[in-house]
Amino acid sequence: WEKIVNAVTGVAKEAKNLGEEDPRRIIHSFKVGLAIVVVSLVYYFDFLYEGFGVSAMWAVMTVVVVFEFSVGATLGKGINRAIATLLGGALGVGAHRLASFTGDKIECTMLMVSVFLIAALATYTRFFPKLKARYDYGLLIFILTFSLISVSGYRDDEILDMAQRRLTTILIGGAVTVLVCILIFPVWAGSDLHKITATNIEKLAIFLEGFGHLYFQVPNDNDEEYKASMDEYKSVLNSKGIEDSLVNFAKWEPRHGKFRYRHPWDQYLKIGSLTRECAYKIDALNGYLNSDVEFVLPLQTPVGIRTKIQESCTKMTSECSIALRELAMGINTMTCSLSADSWVLNAKAAAKEFKSSLKTDLWSDTDLLDIVPAITVASLIIDIVSCTVKIANAVHELASL
Amino acid sequence: WEKIVNAVTGVAKEAKNLGEEDPRRIIHSFKVGLAIVVVSLVYYFDFLYEGFGVSAMWAVMTVVVVFEFSVGATLGKGINRAIATLLGGALGVGAHRLASFTGDKIECTMLMVSVFLIAALATYTRFFPKLKARYDYGLLIFILTFSLISVSGYRDDEILDMAQRRLTTILIGGAVTVLVCILIFPVWAGSDLHKITATNIEKLAIFLEGFGHLYFQVPNDNDEEYKASMDEYKSVLNSKGIEDSLVNFAKWEPRHGKFRYRHPWDQYLKIGSLTRECAYKIDALNGYLNSDVEFVLPLQTPVGIRTKIQESCTKMTSECSIALRELAMGINTMTCSLSADSWVLNAKAAAKEFKSSLKTDLWSDTDLLDIVPAITVASLIIDIVSCTVKIANAVHELASL
Repeated sequence: WEKIVNAVTGVAKEAKNLGEEDPRRIIHSFKVGLAIVVVSLVYYFDFLYEGFGVSAMWAVMTVVVVFEFSVGATLGKGINRAIATLLGGALGVGAHRLASFTGDKIECTMLMVSVFLIAALATYTRFFPKLKARYDYGLLIFILTFSLISVSGYRDDEILDMAQRRLTTILIGGAVTVLVCILIFPVWAGSDLHKITATNIEKLAIFLEGFGHLYFQVPNDNDEEYKASMDEYKSVLNSKGIEDSLVNFAKWEPRHGKFRYRHPWDQYLKIGSLTRECAYKIDALNGYLNSDVEFVLPLQTPVGIRTKIQESCTKMTSECSIALRELAMGINTMTCSLSADSWVLNAKAAAKEFKSSLKTDLWSDTDLLDIVPAITVASLIIDIVSCTVKIANAVHELASL
Repeated sequence: WEKIVNAVTGVAKEAKNLGEEDPRRIIHSFKVGLAIVVVSLVYYFDFLYEGFGVSAMWAVMTVVVVFEFSVGATLGKGINRAIATLLGGALGVGAHRLASFTGDKIECTMLMVSVFLIAALATYTRFFPKLKARYDYGLLIFILTFSLISVSGYRDDEILDMAQRRLTTILIGGAVTVLVCILIFPVWAGSDLHKITATNIEKLAIFLEGFGHLYFQVPNDNDEEYKASMDEYKSVLNSKGIEDSLVNFAKWEPRHGKFRYRHPWDQYLKIGSLTRECAYKIDALNGYLNSDVEFVLPLQTPVGIRTKIQESCTKMTSECSIALRELAMGINTMTCSLSADSWVLNAKAAAKEFKSSLKTDLWSDTDLLDIVPAITVASLIIDIVSCTVKIANAVHELASL
């Protein structure tokens, strides 16, 4: 009994967390409920139901299947469904007409063969990567409509009526869905993509900021807090899937907020992939904070040696961190943040400083073995500076498009 | 006109490539066509059609919507659809019965309110990450069936019959789909996952093998070939999405080939994430092959210095590369490849050798600035050795499960 109570409170807690994490989820759920109720009015009003009959169910079905979280995804599915139904229906009616000129036996065979061929062909088309990304759902609905129309045509001779009623109800369902989705607290995939791009860059900045503190300073109580927020960069490593789908959705969306219809969404993919590249290097760097590397090389570089690289390294990380923060802010406010450039220049200067510090005699009395980890850390940080430069360029390019 | 010809030949060529890349795609397309034709026989035979009437279309619909490329995905969708239709239908009939005890006006309101609430609740449930991964489609179909049954109950008083007919046709459609999917050249998500895990590890091995050649040797004509095959590791960086979905599908699959029903699929996720970790380090290493890093540090380490680290580094990369190849082969043949262990030990020994070489006076006359890139490369390779050890352990653990 206690177990059940625990399970229920656990689920309730998770539901609450999900809602607090993104309150739009709660609104979305009510929107779906509303759209279904609105479209079910087709059943309640006699003059509507008499027109459509059983086909009225396609309106309800369309709402349930097409309503997605973001406007872009909903529009994409809705447009795909409408066009695919039209094409599939037209082809189905055509095939039925063509077959009806022949005898009953041949008609049956012809319809079967055409359904087999068209279904196989359309299924194969779904493997094309470009079509899969944007029109996968449309191809599915095309197969569905074509098969349904041409197969049921064998039983029902009024398939033109049927196809037309089905198309009309699907259009009603799609229209209700799109209207509810856009008019009531719309969720734009475009702004989400915009925000996630900025957030990911900021996560890198947070890591770099913390790294300077953790690597060069004596451990203290705040370390755990730092570590927790620093680990957020790990979500950037696998962000490609989310970004790709958001870009696909965003391309369906009309002008909204600060984004015009043909906003250069592809540039976000470019920034995203540079951000990930930087995150890979940060992941390598992170190994030097933990005990990962210890198994061959000494992790604990003598403090004396850390101090030698401390100044230039903390400078590089902090300048990079500020530059990335500025870039993230610039994306958020959609301003061309030239202020980031000066921080990038500072970071570059710090990298050059480090380079010349290697030439001095500061190092002559040290054992090479001791300095290897420190040198590697410094050199990874330099790589990160060069990644930051690339991210800055890509962000500026976005601002200029 | 010429443009059209070009476009058509382009599409034809891509279609051919897709087929050659994975001939199962062609077979899959024909399987879908076959399943639709088989299920459309429900329309052609009188005794079947008389039993089902319009509901026959649900059989066709189920085939089109449920038939997926792999057995696991198809089974997952089919089971989800069957159970969700049963539950949604039962609840819909229940709501209808409950409402019918009241007056006409109240009945209508009650049904609307219940549809609104249940749809909103089920939509919200779809945001739970664990449910989303495995039961998303089921929740969608639950909403669909519940809405359709309880809403059309307002018009049709024989909804129990309707719900039952719908469930039967969906079961027929689902059964045909699953049978065609499993009996004719089945595509098992489990074996695909197994293969992709081995291939990804092998891609890392190919990079490491090529890196030893390219970094330490004078450029020659074969370099381009090497480079092309080395870049394949990049697909490993973003492999998480594919692996996650394959694991989800594989969990639905029954015993097949060398895999039992509860094969430890989650262990593949662990191996995959270690493989990706190693790929991130390889990506950092790859920067030292290209001109990425040049902007601050000299890329061209003087040849004299490269020679100093050459022996231990080529030893580490080649031993790692062989170890990874052995591990990949061990996964492919499902044997516990203890032979990989000796290569891993060799790689570890080479790393220790490098460590002690740093202590000798070999380096005393060199400029620190010149050796920084070389040291970084060596130290990244050492990190890769430690990743290889982890991968080897995870693979052994898989063999022991």
